Parts: sequence; C-alpha cells; structure tokens
Amino acid sequence: MFSVRPVLFVVGMLCLFVAGILFLPIAYILMSGTESPTNLHAFLSAAVIAAATGLPMCLLNRRANFRLVPRQMYLLTVISWLVVNLLCSVPFLLSNLHLSLVDAVFETVSGTTTTGSTVLNHLDRLPDSILVWRSTLQWLGGIGIVVMVVAIMPHLRVGGMRLFRSEASDKSEKLTSRSRNVAQSIGSIYLGLSVLCAAAYWLGGMDTFNAVLHAMTTISTGGFSTSDLSLQQFANPGILWISSLFMLLSGLPFVLIFQATRGNGSALFQDQQVRGYIYFVITSAIFLSTWLAYSYDMPIIDALRLGTFSSISIITTTGYSTIDYNLWGGLAVGAFFFMTFAGACAGSTAGGIKIFRFQIAARMLRNQINSMLHPHGEFPNFYNGKTVSNDIVTSIVAFSFVFAGTIAVLAIALSLTGLDLTTSLSGAATSVANVGPGLGDIIGPVGNFASLPDSAKWLLVVGMLMGRLEILTVLVIFTAGFWRG
Amino acid sequence: MFSVRPVLFVVGMLCLFVAGILFLPIAYILMSGTESPTNLHAFLSAAVIAAATGLPMCLLNRRANFRLVPRQMYLLTVISWLVVNLLCSVPFLLSNLHLSLVDAVFETVSGTTTTGSTVLNHLDRLPDSILVWRSTLQWLGGIGIVVMVVAIMPHLRVGGMRLFRSEASDKSEKLTSRSRNVAQSIGSIYLGLSVLCAAAYWLGGMDTFNAVLHAMTTISTGGFSTSDLSLQQFANPGILWISSLFMLLSGLPFVLIFQATRGNGSALFQDQQVRGYIYFVITSAIFLSTWLAYSYDMPIIDALRLGTFSSISIITTTGYSTIDYNLWGGLAVGAFFFMTFAGACAGSTAGGIKIFRFQIAARMLRNQINSMLHPHGEFPNFYNGKTVSNDIVTSIVAFSFVFAGTIAVLAIALSLTGLDLTTSLSGAATSVANVGPGLGDIIGPVGNFASLPDSAKWLLVVGMLMGRLEILTVLVIFTAGFWRG
Repeated sequence: MFSVRPVLFVVGMLCLFVAGILFLPIAYILMSGTESPTNLHAFLSAAVIAAATGLPMCLLNRRANFRLVPRQMYLLTVISWLVVNLLCSVPFLLSNLHLSLVDAVFETVSGTTTTGSTVLNHLDRLPDSILVWRSTLQWLGGIGIVVMVVAIMPHLRVGGMRLFRSEASDKSEKLTSRSRNVAQSIGSIYLGLSVLCAAAYWLGGMDTFNAVLHAMTTISTGGFSTSDLSLQQFANPGILWISSLFMLLSGLPFVLIFQATRGNGSALFQDQQVRGYIYFVITSAIFLSTWLAYSYDMPIIDALRLGTFSSISIITTTGYSTIDYNLWGGLAVGAFFFMTFAGACAGSTAGGIKIFRFQIAARMLRNQINSMLHPHGEFPNFYNGKTVSNDIVTSIVAFSFVFAGTIAVLAIALSLTGLDLTTSLSGAATSVANVGPGLGDIIGPVGNFASLPDSAKWLLVVGMLMGRLEILTVLVIFTAGFWRG
Repeated sequence: MFSVRPVLFVVGMLCLFVAGILFLPIAYILMSGTESPTNLHAFLSAAVIAAATGLPMCLLNRRANFRLVPRQMYLLTVISWLVVNLLCSVPFLLSNLHLSLVDAVFETVSGTTTTGSTVLNHLDRLPDSILVWRSTLQWLGGIGIVVMVVAIMPHLRVGGMRLFRSEASDKSEKLTSRSRNVAQSIGSIYLGLSVLCAAAYWLGGMDTFNAVLHAMTTISTGGFSTSDLSLQQFANPGILWISSLFMLLSGLPFVLIFQATRGNGSALFQDQQVRGYIYFVITSAIFLSTWLAYSYDMPIIDALRLGTFSSISIITTTGYSTIDYNLWGGLAVGAFFFMTFAGACAGSTAGGIKIFRFQIAARMLRNQINSMLHPHGEFPNFYNGKTVSNDIVTSIVAFSFVFAGTIAVLAIALSLTGLDLTTSLSGAATSVANVGPGLGDIIGPVGNFASLPDSAKWLLVVGMLMGRLEILTVLVIFTAGFWRG
C-alpha cells in the first residue's frame, strides 16, 4: 500500500491557503462597512474552520516522502478538490442567505470548477461580499486547474494528457519543486491577464468593483456575474468585445502564453492545438453571425458582436448568460448543444473535451479511411510534428467514450428526478463540460438551477467535479485494483 | 483504376430481382380485384422500369472478372442500395397516393433500411397493395443487410466487422459463390422465422393479411404496420409478447441461429455478443417494467408486457409505434434516447451501434484503468476467447466517432431547417440508428414525419442510408484517394 501522508500534507497546505484566501472577502467587508455582521461572522468562521482543518494535517505529516507515485496523485487530486469545496461552501451556509447544504455546495463547486451555473436568484440583490466570494472561487478554480493540468496530469495516464509531458517534466520527478516553478510562471500570466482584463473592463465603463469581479470570472472562463443580466447590465456594447478577447486568450494553453511573453511567440502560433482552436472559433463566429444577420435582419455589427461573443463564450466553456440564445431557434440551440462539448485548448482554464482530442481523433479517422483503401499500409498518428504513441491515442479515445458515457448516465439519472429530456441532456452536458447554462426554459441562459430538485443538484455537483478532473481520475479511485497491494 | 463492370453486373442482377419482387403486390392486386387500376399500372410500370434498367447492365457486363477488390465492394454496396431504392420508390410515385418524389424516396428508404419511419398519414385508409409493398420493402431490406454483413463486410476494414471474418470466408475470395451459399443458409432461416412469426400472429388473432405483413416487418426489425395504431389495433394483448419474442430472435446473428438449427446450439448460447445482448434486453425490460409499475400504478402484468415490448422494440431498432412512451415522462424518454444508439447483434437485421462494439469498448476502458494503475503492464483485448487485433479495435473506435459525428452533423443540419432540438436530435439519432420513431410531439411514436420540410426529409434519407451501410462505407467513396490510381 502507498502512504497517504504526503497526500494529507498537500491537502492540509491547500486548507491553509483557503483560510488565507478567505481574508479577501473579510477585508472587503471591513473596508466597505456596509455588510451585515452575519456575513463577517460567516467568512471568519470559514477561515477558522479551514485553518483548523489544515494545520494538523500539515503538522502531522510534514516529514513525509514527497516522491509521489501515480496512485497518490489520483488520490491527492480527488481529495483536495473535495476538501477545498467543502471548506469554501461554509460562507454560503453561514451567511445571511442561509443556503441549504446542497445549494451551498452546488454554488461552490460551480465556482471552483469554473462552470458558472447558479442556484441563486436575484444576483443584483446579493450582499457584495457574496459576489466577491463567488468571483474569487472561479478565479481560484481557474488557476487551480491550469496548475493541475500542467504539473500533475502529464504524469498520469488519463485522457492522453501525457502528450504534454515535456522532457523537463520527465526529469524532475519531485512534485513539489516543479509545481512551484510552474505555479509561479503560470500564476504571473494568470494574474497579468486578470489585471489587463479588469483595466479593459474599467476603461469600457465598468466601475472598479464590477471590473475586477468580471475579470476574475472571464480569465477563469467561469461565467459568474454580479447581475441577472450578466454582461448585458452594462450600457456599452463594446464590453462584449472586451470579454470576447479575454475569454479567447484564456482558452489558450497558459504555458505557451508564458513562452510567448518570453519572446518565443512561434511556440504559440505554430502550435497545432492553438491553430485548431482559432480556426474553430473563427468558423463558429462567422457561421453564427451570418445566420443571425440573415435570419433576424440584425445589423451586421450587432450580429457579429453577438455571434462572436456567444461562440467564444460557449467554446471556452465560460457561459456568461448574457444572451438568451434559446430565442434564436432550432439552429442556434442545436449548434450550442454540440459546441458545449468542444472546449478550448488543454492547459487553459476551459472545460470540455478540448481541441487536441478532436484533432487526434480526426487524424485517426483519416488513417482509418486510408487503411480501408490500402489494407496493408501503416498510418502513424502525428501531432505537432511528433509521432503520437498508440497508448496516448487509446487513452484519448477512452476519455471520449467515458465523457460521452458519463453524460449519458447523468442525463438518465437526471430524467429519473423528473426533468424533461432537454433539461436532462443539456444539464448533464453543461455540467460535465463545465460550461454553465443549459438549454430550455428551466436551466437555459435566462434560467437558473434553483428550482431543480435537490437530487438533481447533487447529481450535477458530481458531474461538474468529474468533468473538471477528467473523469477517469475520479473513477479510478473506485476500482478495487486501486486499493490492492 | 479498378473496373466497374462486375459492380454494374451485380447491380443489374439486383434490378432484375426487384422487377421479380414487384410481382408480389401485382399478384395481390390481381387476386383481390378490389384495387384501383392506377395502382396495378404503377406496380407494372415499376417492374418494367426495373427490368429495363437491369437487363442491359447484366448483358453488357456478363464477362467481367468477379474477384472483387475492396474498392469495388464499397462501390457495389453504395450503388446497389441507391439504385434499388430509386426503383422501389416508383410504385409510390405512380400509385393513387401521388406522393411527391421526396416522400416516395423517404418511405422507400425507411422501408429498405428497416428504419420504419413513415410520411404516410392514415395508414388504415391506404390501399392494401401499398401496405403489401411497404412490408415487402422491409422484409427485403432485412435479408439484404444480413447477407451484406455476412458476405461482404468481413472483407472490408469498416467498423471492426473483420472481427466476424471466419477462416472459410478468408479462403474463398470469390464473392459470388460464397455469397450464394451464405444467402441460401441465411435465407432459409429468415424465411423460416417469418413463417413461424406469421403463424404465431395468426394464432394470436390476426387475420392472414395482417399476420403476414406484420411478420415481415417484425423479422426485419423494421416496424412498419398496417394501422396508425400499429400493434395496438389488435385486441389480444398477447400479440405484444409474440412480437417481443420474434423481434428478440431477429436481433440475434442469423449465422449462429443457422448453426443452432444444425445442432450446434452452444455456438449461439456461448457467443459473447449474444449473451451481452440478452443481458442488456433483460436489464432494460426489468428496469422499465419496474418503473412503470411503480410510477404509474400499472398492474405488474401490464407493466411487464409494455416494458419488455418497448425495450426490445427500441434495442432491436424495430420501433413499432405502438406505445406513446412520450407520455411516460422524462425517464422513459431519456432512456429511449440512449437505447436508440444500442442496436442488437451484428449479423442480425437490427441497426444501431451493435452490442459487440460496446463490449470491445468496455474492455478497452477496463484496460485503460488497469494501465493507469500499472503503467508498464500490457493489456490485450479479448473477444469470444480470441485476441482482438489493434486495427479492429481502432476501426470500432473510428466507427463510434463517425456514428456520433454523423448524428451531430445531421442534427445541426436538421435544426437549420427550423426543427426544435428534441426533434432534430432524436430525428438524427433515429434515422442513423435505423430505429423509426423519434421523440417529441412531431416525430414521436404517435407522430409522423409527413409534416417535416422537404429538406429535412432528404437529410433523414441520407442519414438512414448512411446508418444502414455503416457510414464509412459511404464516406470512403467521397474521398479523393478512392478514385486515384
């Protein structure tokens, strides 16, 4: 059996980190001076609970051996997301909103997984501290997933992420030192983009509060807003263009953005995944804009703005519920349903299947057709100019099947709670792909997850977490083999 | 370049066969003496056209070399289905129904692909000869697909059907002699089952006309009926049990049924695909029956009958629109949506993805989880006790992707014609999987495809044909490589 001590140590560190982060809303409450004491108390209690959970875990396990084996990494990934989400839901429970347990957990998980679905009604009337906390959760979740994908995933045989294993990551097997370096370079990019985005929003007419909070949910491709109108609350339509630009950037692999800032722009622009992503965004945006201009007699400039914004919002799995594309009729609804699955680049904050998996699958299909014509030929799979080994192709395929299977099982389970087909299917898809809004009247862009039965909310919580952790990472924990010798 | 002459010869033979088959409704009209002369004329004209098309093709190409290479087989498959369907649609065009071209082709293709969707309203008021023709089309389509899958597909690298290549099929490369043997043994089983089924229906209370016509659409897992009430038109509820039994049998591989009649029952009962199929049917039937009994306070016996019948009808892709499961609420609708994709065994008349592909995919996932735990282990894929080569696994995976992709593209194209999401998605799925009824008010079990726009009908025709021919068989024809040197 492997040791759980290093796992507990890292989870403990994360708890202490959460305790520290809670001082953000606490500081805001103290400075603004307009909040109910209940909320100050809620955030302080949460910080105390987080610290009290983390401190003993760290102290008792600080002498552990930190060369983690894959099983420890799986366990670390799953446990840390569970514990962090439970701790982060405490403020929702204790605040003057008095959310039920399921609602508090749903809102938290929707935040940290950067999904952006909400169970809260009338966002405009919420206490500011709660709005700050929601945006903070997404911002943290965004950087959390990027670091996890860059530092941990390439070591694991999940979903073909080994494709992104660099020579450097092979050599340094010691997790902590490497993840510190990665976290620093990625963190600086993440912070830089957030500041730029907030500044752009501010110049576009947002007040500082809204600019900062929306920047946090744009760069994390999360999609939480401060109003039921989402970005539509701002008079300047240019806001949608600013948002489109920064969502687009956040769908890029952060490691490549970092390299580009170091002068190596070609690494970014010649990357096959980045090119595929950009082509996909452009095609979708042109397609949707043309259709809007044509079918709804929309002025070209409006069609272009709405088409581009909506495409990028869905492809990057941000899902700002700014525009009710349900009203755009069958085509838009159908297109959005399938775009939900796409996702942007691996190594970004976006959810979904990710562009590189589609590219490798497309190559596999081309090879398949070739082998139908030339039965004795050999057709290797290439990516970014390198051969892709068979086991990576297999794990990408396995991931796609598991992704589709999870959505199918979740949709059937949701329909068991009494939801209709559109709500069940699109709810399952939007949660596993970490997009946010579903389709239909209930959970569509102008709808809300509040009215769903509790059982459905718990199912969606499971879906969001599994989707964010690439599914198999979670499933493997539940196999007998995982716990055996 | 390969020669198209043997392809044209076989297509010519099929045209002559169609001309012969047309004498079935002609004989019926002459015997009954109650039909309008227009319909007699319609069927006679169709027979003349079929003979006039086929005869020159046969005569001009009768000296061709019949050792077919794979490209000729792909071309043969696609061209023969196209030509036969066009010829078979002539009676619908010229009869006193005066169907439009798109409706005539839709009804024909829905018949020959054993899909069973219909554009005809008020089946009860249709001329008998048309009802005879509809059932005949499904019956022919059923035997056509079984012979194709057994005689041609194992030679091609499509969808992993090479898995079913026997040693015998390897040795005799000459298509004609082998397919004659296969067609004879399969044909005798097919005919035998049809006669048994008709007799059972007759004993269950149907008149001879209905017994024969429904037997033809049961054994072919087609699902056309003679009334808008489908099997519900018969007072005896036992009819549903008879139908369930014979649909279940028709979902088995006909080659194994043939071997079982020769005394080798273990070949049937120990086959991994057959076992998986039976387990799947039993699980679905119990699940659905329990839910019906529990949620609708249905008497156990009724719940069991409806649950079993509906499960088998969807899994075997028969799709008798006997029961409006739309009314059963979210769970049933969701479950049926996903069961649509399943399909029964390869080598049967059923459509869909087929059980063996799910089994091999499941094994692949298990291996994937094993390799997550044991990064240096080797995990081969087994099926029916034999190792499955990598290229077969790859082509099964490729098939699944192409299947899902085709449904996605078709659904988006359908939504472009103005259909809602439920209709677009379920219409795309039901056509590519060759099931029949979709979901929702328009194309659900009590609905009808008549009201769809012509563009949507053409799209569904393409979907039904591609689904029936395992998709890649059609796509490969449209690649540049197919026509090159």
